[in-house]
Amino acid sequence: MIDRPFKLSAKVIIRNGDGHCLLLRRSSQSKGNAGKWDLPGGKVDDGETFDAALLREVREETGLEIRLDRVAGAAQSELPERCIAYIILEGQHISGTVRLSSEHDHHQWVESAAMADIDLCPQFKGFAETYAAGS
Amino acid sequence: MIDRPFKLSAKVIIRNGDGHCLLLRRSSQSKGNAGKWDLPGGKVDDGETFDAALLREVREETGLEIRLDRVAGAAQSELPERCIAYIILEGQHISGTVRLSSEHDHHQWVESAAMADIDLCPQFKGFAETYAAGS
Repeated sequence: MIDRPFKLSAKVIIRNGDGHCLLLRRSSQSKGNAGKWDLPGGKVDDGETFDAALLREVREETGLEIRLDRVAGAAQSELPERCIAYIILEGQHISGTVRLSSEHDHHQWVESAAMADIDLCPQFKGFAETYAAGS
Repeated sequence: MIDRPFKLSAKVIIRNGDGHCLLLRRSSQSKGNAGKWDLPGGKVDDGETFDAALLREVREETGLEIRLDRVAGAAQSELPERCIAYIILEGQHISGTVRLSSEHDHHQWVESAAMADIDLCPQFKGFAETYAAGS
């Protein structure tokens, strides 16, 4: 039972032409999950649609232009003061090369079947196992 | 591959004190999926947060007050002009008795394990199977 406000976050599995998926490592200065691997995307601001927020976050975090293809799953994380609900899409890399923001210090493109073996932020482990199994 | 705008819809599995889940049958006048069983909830309007939209839709469609507890899953449906992304929460019935709007003509409370056997709107079948298996 949770008695906290929910906040929406939109995340995306970006696949390149080889079908590999982009993961970003949270920098050592991150407030939470420093050093863990993360999916691109982030908080949907008030008044912003989730898909616009997602494309904006992807540009800010990676410099990439992508196309959103389908809904891939959902996840949540519970913080002391709120619960974050993640909607996770799958998309395709369209243009650009990865240029990280200060939020992340490393990136990798991994085969989708390997997603379950990565040291991901804990809230995405369950999703990653399902995604890897279906890939 | 989808090259359509996404729209967000928030749905909820409402559980009562017995752990049964509320389903609503779409009325015969429904534009889509008439006669199929649906989850409470609906479209998130521009400028509205998804949890506020969900509580509003539940009030409009069922007359119930509920508490949102956790993220239960995601789904999508593809319409000719757009793709609907569903985030599906689980919640608890707090007060009120079911009073349907004109959108639905019947309701039932079902055991969660039986969710996979219901004639649901097709976009929720995959979710319902996973949910029923985990209940």
